[in-house]
Amino acid sequence: MRRLILVRHGQSVWNLENIFTGWTDVELSPNGIREAERAGESLLTAQIGFDVAFVSYLKRAIDTLHIMAKSAKLEWVDEFKSWRLNERHYGALQGLNKSDTARKYGEDQVRIWRRSFDVAPPMLNPDDPRSPRFEPKYSGVPDSELPLGESLKMAIERVLPYWESDIKLRLKSGADVLVVAHGNSLRGLVKELEGISDSDIANLEIPTGRPLVFELDDKTLKPINKFYVNLD
Amino acid sequence: MRRLILVRHGQSVWNLENIFTGWTDVELSPNGIREAERAGESLLTAQIGFDVAFVSYLKRAIDTLHIMAKSAKLEWVDEFKSWRLNERHYGALQGLNKSDTARKYGEDQVRIWRRSFDVAPPMLNPDDPRSPRFEPKYSGVPDSELPLGESLKMAIERVLPYWESDIKLRLKSGADVLVVAHGNSLRGLVKELEGISDSDIANLEIPTGRPLVFELDDKTLKPINKFYVNLD
Repeated sequence: MRRLILVRHGQSVWNLENIFTGWTDVELSPNGIREAERAGESLLTAQIGFDVAFVSYLKRAIDTLHIMAKSAKLEWVDEFKSWRLNERHYGALQGLNKSDTARKYGEDQVRIWRRSFDVAPPMLNPDDPRSPRFEPKYSGVPDSELPLGESLKMAIERVLPYWESDIKLRLKSGADVLVVAHGNSLRGLVKELEGISDSDIANLEIPTGRPLVFELDDKTLKPINKFYVNLD
Repeated sequence: MRRLILVRHGQSVWNLENIFTGWTDVELSPNGIREAERAGESLLTAQIGFDVAFVSYLKRAIDTLHIMAKSAKLEWVDEFKSWRLNERHYGALQGLNKSDTARKYGEDQVRIWRRSFDVAPPMLNPDDPRSPRFEPKYSGVPDSELPLGESLKMAIERVLPYWESDIKLRLKSGADVLVVAHGNSLRGLVKELEGISDSDIANLEIPTGRPLVFELDDKTLKPINKFYVNLD
């Protein structure tokens, strides 16, 4: 039996302000920092460890990992970072207030952007200063792979190759694995693990800062059990 | 030209209390946290980046790396951890106050333990609860390689294989490299780079939290320049 532990980063300052975030690299809020500490403490209490950690390129996830690894007394564990675990890219909506956007485009349109499987938001112009190709941390990624906006489907399609190539490899070699990532990149992993349909996956809500543990069959890596770690 | 940046972790709570620390996994002091922040800020100001970071298995170094990478806006860079970058193991002296130890064994004996090249401290008994073989994080290291106490010479001898196998490999592949470690493991790297003699190396003092930059020849990896980054 292997364990795969999924953790959605703690609350960020933009979650708090109700702004479309996506790849914008915002900080954890003070509450988000406490959520990360509690997530680590909950693993320590439950005696659930991990041998390796994977995390996105966004600091709200990286900081969550570092804070929770420290409070789980596992700060020495190897970690690997990938842009493929980033949140869904919200295109030209990034940085906009969700309520303002609903007033401008209508509630229905915003609901479609937020909750459909394959409708992408308005794309960034490639020359927009928010384009990831202007950020040094993405300089190792070919421009053609860097998104200017993603539907949930598009986000999942760039998460899964990393699941196949890197995360499964570690699970197969016998490691218990922690993944600290984002609402939509984690939806991709859970969809793959549980075979959730395209129409249902957008409704799956993974709470922030609460470790979700999948116990996987050694050979097939299919889930045989699933539970949230108790935070109390 | 490649850059190798060496950083000695910020002040720990035991540095402050004048206790032999070695492999004891103590926290940074509040001052040590500020030192780590300033180290990262100084790299940002000097526009000196790094493509990969190496760090010991001890949390005072890991926390220093995470704090400084964040303040250098490079928290997304890959990091690799190794027990081989740990501080010199201080054997049975670990946890003892330096002044008390001097009163008990004499100033001269303590000076020899602290400043000689090849005199080891009193070894831990293999069954001592402080023995690293009882710590989960060293479970992947063969017992025969785990020290019960080290002279500076012994510490350097287990640092250098990692320099050869892992750190040089990254420098050769074109990366600028950050190493966050400890007074004695960093002495090993500087001794190797600059060809410092056995009798002189113990007198080399590397200040905490101040990035020491070696500019290395692309092909030979020999130092062509060396400077401390300005903290102001």
